[in-house]
Amino acid sequence: MSPAYDPDNIFAKILRGEIPAAKVYEDAETLAFLDVMPQAQGHTLVIPKSPSRGLLDAEPAALAPLMATVQRVARAVKDAFAADGVTILQYNEPAGGQTVFHLHVHVIPRHEGVALTRHAGGMADGARLEADAERIRAALTAA
Amino acid sequence: MSPAYDPDNIFAKILRGEIPAAKVYEDAETLAFLDVMPQAQGHTLVIPKSPSRGLLDAEPAALAPLMATVQRVARAVKDAFAADGVTILQYNEPAGGQTVFHLHVHVIPRHEGVALTRHAGGMADGARLEADAERIRAALTAA
Repeated sequence: MSPAYDPDNIFAKILRGEIPAAKVYEDAETLAFLDVMPQAQGHTLVIPKSPSRGLLDAEPAALAPLMATVQRVARAVKDAFAADGVTILQYNEPAGGQTVFHLHVHVIPRHEGVALTRHAGGMADGARLEADAERIRAALTAA
Repeated sequence: MSPAYDPDNIFAKILRGEIPAAKVYEDAETLAFLDVMPQAQGHTLVIPKSPSRGLLDAEPAALAPLMATVQRVARAVKDAFAADGVTILQYNEPAGGQTVFHLHVHVIPRHEGVALTRHAGGMADGARLEADAERIRAALTAA
């Protein structure tokens, strides 16, 4: 069993509007916003609105809308940043790489020959994140 | 646009039964089998039976059953190998880390303090893979 869900994790606070995020997409069941410690420009996180710690304890019904948004965002970040590929990462529990304990999927646009920077390597500038979010929102609208 | 789907990729051959795999789960829409170049013991791949090169060109309807199987297998590999966590990886296009061009999701059981070995670091022994597959099948049955 996984430990219990903690409703004070930072993504729950973003969902409640208690802390800001550079949002790129939102629907009834999911939210997408830029990672504040991006591993590449346009690094976006997609989360379900329903509470679960990770994939292991998620309601199966939450996964279909989550992955629909992941696919939509993956196409948009590829377009927005003229990327050559997209890397999807999803970490469960600290041993699996997880640091925030609300289920989230990393969607990272990739360019040939450019390695990912280290996660938690540093906080991105807020204005830069907002400008990147606008590029992704535009790509979503154009799709 | 992604390049076209190549029906001669090795996962398509596994789906057609032309080459063997250490299968752990199969249903009408998905297949799960062990990676022959595991990054950790129990490293499993989940694929849709429908043809798509990656996430970007997949039919949205293929994603829900795919992720249902990913979740089922994630829980099973965690149980089967008494793992502390699970890492999910999904690569699109060579720049995104992809080497086989049929949509696939890596499900990797993780243990605290144990780094992933390099992908394509070497072929696993067939008997060892089959023994690992049997442990995962047993965990799926017990779930």
